[in-house]
Amino acid sequence: MENNSAQQPTHRILFEPSGRLCDAKGSETVLDAARRYGVFLQSDCGGEGSCGKCIVSANPPNCLSPPSGEERSLLSPEQLSRGDRLACQAQIEGPGIICIPGLDKVDVSAKMTISGTFPADPAIKRIFIPELELQPAYEDLTAAVRRTSRMLAGTDIRFEDLTAIRELSNAVKNGGPMTLVCHRERGVTSVLTGERNRSLGIAVDVGTTTLALYLCDLRTGALLCSAGAGNPQRLFGEDVISRISYADNNEQGTGVLHKLVVDKINELAGNLLTETGFRRDDVDEMAVVGNTTMETLFASLHPHSLGVFPYLPPLRFPGDFSARDLGIGLNPGTNVHIFPVISGFLGGDTIGAILAEQPHRKNEVLLIFDIGTNGEIVLGNRDALWATSCATGPALEGAHISCGMRAAEGAIHRVDIDPGTLRPFYQVLGDTGKSRPQGICGSGIIDAIAAMRRTGLIMPNGRLVEGMPGVIPNESGIGRRFVLVPAESSASGREIAVTMQDVRQIQLAKAALFAGVKILMRKSGINRVDRVVLTGAFGARFDWANAVSIGMFPEFGADIKVAANAAGMGAILGLLDRKIRHEAVEIARMVRFIELAEEPDFQTEYILGMDFPQLPT
Amino acid sequence: MENNSAQQPTHRILFEPSGRLCDAKGSETVLDAARRYGVFLQSDCGGEGSCGKCIVSANPPNCLSPPSGEERSLLSPEQLSRGDRLACQAQIEGPGIICIPGLDKVDVSAKMTISGTFPADPAIKRIFIPELELQPAYEDLTAAVRRTSRMLAGTDIRFEDLTAIRELSNAVKNGGPMTLVCHRERGVTSVLTGERNRSLGIAVDVGTTTLALYLCDLRTGALLCSAGAGNPQRLFGEDVISRISYADNNEQGTGVLHKLVVDKINELAGNLLTETGFRRDDVDEMAVVGNTTMETLFASLHPHSLGVFPYLPPLRFPGDFSARDLGIGLNPGTNVHIFPVISGFLGGDTIGAILAEQPHRKNEVLLIFDIGTNGEIVLGNRDALWATSCATGPALEGAHISCGMRAAEGAIHRVDIDPGTLRPFYQVLGDTGKSRPQGICGSGIIDAIAAMRRTGLIMPNGRLVEGMPGVIPNESGIGRRFVLVPAESSASGREIAVTMQDVRQIQLAKAALFAGVKILMRKSGINRVDRVVLTGAFGARFDWANAVSIGMFPEFGADIKVAANAAGMGAILGLLDRKIRHEAVEIARMVRFIELAEEPDFQTEYILGMDFPQLPT
Repeated sequence: MENNSAQQPTHRILFEPSGRLCDAKGSETVLDAARRYGVFLQSDCGGEGSCGKCIVSANPPNCLSPPSGEERSLLSPEQLSRGDRLACQAQIEGPGIICIPGLDKVDVSAKMTISGTFPADPAIKRIFIPELELQPAYEDLTAAVRRTSRMLAGTDIRFEDLTAIRELSNAVKNGGPMTLVCHRERGVTSVLTGERNRSLGIAVDVGTTTLALYLCDLRTGALLCSAGAGNPQRLFGEDVISRISYADNNEQGTGVLHKLVVDKINELAGNLLTETGFRRDDVDEMAVVGNTTMETLFASLHPHSLGVFPYLPPLRFPGDFSARDLGIGLNPGTNVHIFPVISGFLGGDTIGAILAEQPHRKNEVLLIFDIGTNGEIVLGNRDALWATSCATGPALEGAHISCGMRAAEGAIHRVDIDPGTLRPFYQVLGDTGKSRPQGICGSGIIDAIAAMRRTGLIMPNGRLVEGMPGVIPNESGIGRRFVLVPAESSASGREIAVTMQDVRQIQLAKAALFAGVKILMRKSGINRVDRVVLTGAFGARFDWANAVSIGMFPEFGADIKVAANAAGMGAILGLLDRKIRHEAVEIARMVRFIELAEEPDFQTEYILGMDFPQLPT
Repeated sequence: MENNSAQQPTHRILFEPSGRLCDAKGSETVLDAARRYGVFLQSDCGGEGSCGKCIVSANPPNCLSPPSGEERSLLSPEQLSRGDRLACQAQIEGPGIICIPGLDKVDVSAKMTISGTFPADPAIKRIFIPELELQPAYEDLTAAVRRTSRMLAGTDIRFEDLTAIRELSNAVKNGGPMTLVCHRERGVTSVLTGERNRSLGIAVDVGTTTLALYLCDLRTGALLCSAGAGNPQRLFGEDVISRISYADNNEQGTGVLHKLVVDKINELAGNLLTETGFRRDDVDEMAVVGNTTMETLFASLHPHSLGVFPYLPPLRFPGDFSARDLGIGLNPGTNVHIFPVISGFLGGDTIGAILAEQPHRKNEVLLIFDIGTNGEIVLGNRDALWATSCATGPALEGAHISCGMRAAEGAIHRVDIDPGTLRPFYQVLGDTGKSRPQGICGSGIIDAIAAMRRTGLIMPNGRLVEGMPGVIPNESGIGRRFVLVPAESSASGREIAVTMQDVRQIQLAKAALFAGVKILMRKSGINRVDRVVLTGAFGARFDWANAVSIGMFPEFGADIKVAANAAGMGAILGLLDRKIRHEAVEIARMVRFIELAEEPDFQTEYILGMDFPQLPT
């Protein structure tokens, strides 16, 4: 507490939609912090408070100073009342999320490309009761409904949920027909007034970095609409370990993380319903997949035990809980099904991917890579399934990369380098010919490194070759970088480059995956792979040939399939078909988990995996 | 809407602890309303706002006008901040409950005289886990606890409640030993940090008029402490029908009634714990009895169906719900057991009385009268049990009586009349020789009428005999009254008298009971009664000989037993011994309910029962 920095507290700020995490200095303006971290913000007047273009919004609103006179004069009362602020005026006074509108739809297209109609055998049945006949007997309303529904629908129902019984008592007060939402295992979960035939469900994929929601018709199996956003828990760290630390070090931390993700899911669910014109009480069930930490926090359980040996989850799930107990804004009794997990490191998302790709039903041997903030690898077929989890770190999603950003609008997502001139070419997400690049996302950095390797800009050990065109020494004198976009061509006015540190981050990530595959094959005794499935954050945009060329995984000579979001697909399948949920429990029992840290040869493989493969001669 | 009264809205006010219900005129002061309804309030300055003695408090606070200048000068900041008001200054601006402090302990001693130790075989077992051993296996925290508790206590436990799993995850984070609260049917309901041996329960008797809570030790079976209060739902009517109407006619009515009773139960439970020095999380279970409407509202179910033919309850219970779903301020997962009911008119309180008196286990024939706001009658023995419910109205509890009040401090509860001088004698509740009577309660009015009948002041048809000493004509010229206390001797300065209308109210009530017994005996074919048990609001203070003499029930020549609060006793027995709960379900199935309104000879018996019996010659 003796130096000056102690007098200037810093506040953790998450910029949306780029996902950039910043430590803002006390009373720094939003615009200054954005510039310092290379986050693009339009500002025609250069921060004078006169153009009114640098509009942002903040959550919580009090993470920013109260509106200034300039803001009051430049923003309309409507804008002020909905929380619009000017980034050049608003000072950061606490931790929070700053949203830059216009850009506020996180690009989660990788997870959004699922469509179609799937087999439906839902856990929900809606029963219409045109009129409830009451008998003056030793009966109560629930018994009268049971008798009527047996007569009308031949279905035996149960009432166990208190809010459903409450809704029944209200429906009888209001008179007229009613519709029962019956869950096969939990009994009646809701009683609706009137004839209500529509029966929808929402599948949720809670990723460490992104959330994806899929609105489905439980009767037809049709996927109606999907929505995605960044996981706002990133405010407290990019990876699961930092979220666990946050919960460990803050009294109400678990509750805060739970509320962040649940509020965002409620918001996205609301958007899906608005978009399709359905009602909140048309939704009869929700099914949720995520890695173990994400599912644990979604259930508002403390994740502490996941962060310390032996890394046990509080609950391996599956869990069927009521929406009210989880804070989900559907009918209070609505069932929320949380997928089973395999272990602390292999969650319901991995089970979802297995359900989507079905290695457990096939003779051919599958190798599934689910690459997100963590990398999960599944190997096997109907005889046996082996799996492991690799700490790839968030580099493959654009975090911990000097100019990295999430796969959002403005991100460089494809890169190539002219082997003759060594001039880089790139594609920008959402580019309509006008927008300038703001940073580089995961698939872009892999492309860039593969191209740099191909063109000899990088040596096998990862060092940038001095003196090559575009390779310049850092101003500090330590290290070098390869410039992709000069300062004058970028959106933020800051150069976009790949540094030696960036290359090292990717080397660490790809070495973990490479070593994971080697260990998994050795332990399982499986030495043949018929098909490789790539899924996760990169999704369909991912150039797997570049990934192979930098040694992210071995060249098997097998078919390679890219699955948009296998985990989300598994959630959809489980939402629509209750038999799939039993299958999920079987898979959770069947999969043999390999803990890489306990394997004596993991370190060796990991170090061997760091180098880039030799170039084909 | 043409007369003046339409311009002056009235507000329903409940005075506590007298239980007096008033319709206050718009902007009438509390003191004026109290005087108009004969509610005693000390006021030395006569309402000048100078003595500061007429202190009251209001719930909700905004049912009164904001504090005046006089109040701000006479009341200390502490008094103002805790909501003290001066009755002569505060104007009534909305419906609410006005509490007169110093008198704020409702006398529910009739329900409070239970004491002792009872058989204990609780549904709860606490298991102490000194250290949780975690194994690096396919386990989660719940499985680790299951394994440990099987090893330590030989007990198989289950985790089904989400908040219990949440508490477990927090306890593992905090480290150290933990204690599980295991419910035999609902699994673990709470996980506490540290070694916590005490295991308590609370039995609750929710009466239409009064609430009684009993804090018990689940291990020893000892009743540790009890507490009582008026049921604040009385703000919306004295009887169950008016509460059902309120719920029917107000959008949020059910919720309001639910919250009123639950808040008061939470407050009383807090008092019990403060008094005994125990902690909230020492309480492992709550067991609740009440009539069917009270149990329905306690569970926040809409009572509408109880008010219309065929008078079905939403749920016949028993119900085991978590404290959080009912708004009970215990550990969120704590089980709240609601007793089964027989029908819309015979509730868990009647089952409680049967459990306490055990006619179903005896050869002797019992006739149980549970007289509260409603009268329930049970007849039979181990061969068969018959029961009915009589609409006695609240007169027997002092309501609808001109000078009536609840059995609270200041109430005349015993009356006799000198047969020579016809001068009345009375006893006042809480009398220390100084306090003046404020009104007359149920046992007092029965004594008074029996004595008036005995001394010839009343004729067999209920008319007061003109010209007898103390019998004076009403000022209106219609009817007569017998003065018990002249105006100058009463606390409120208003005369306390028994009017002909009062006698008529009691005649209606006793005729209903009398006819109920007759019909019940005829329908059941039982013509022998070995023992009569009297229980309910009158409790131990009740002079049954007077009740027999006015013809409230036939003279059987049987033993008469007065049971303080058989319903509450049943709740205590069920709280302590889970076998009793199974017995309660059996009783609910066994009892045959007679609906008096459907019996063709009920009207005849009712009219015959109106007259008072001839005096013994």
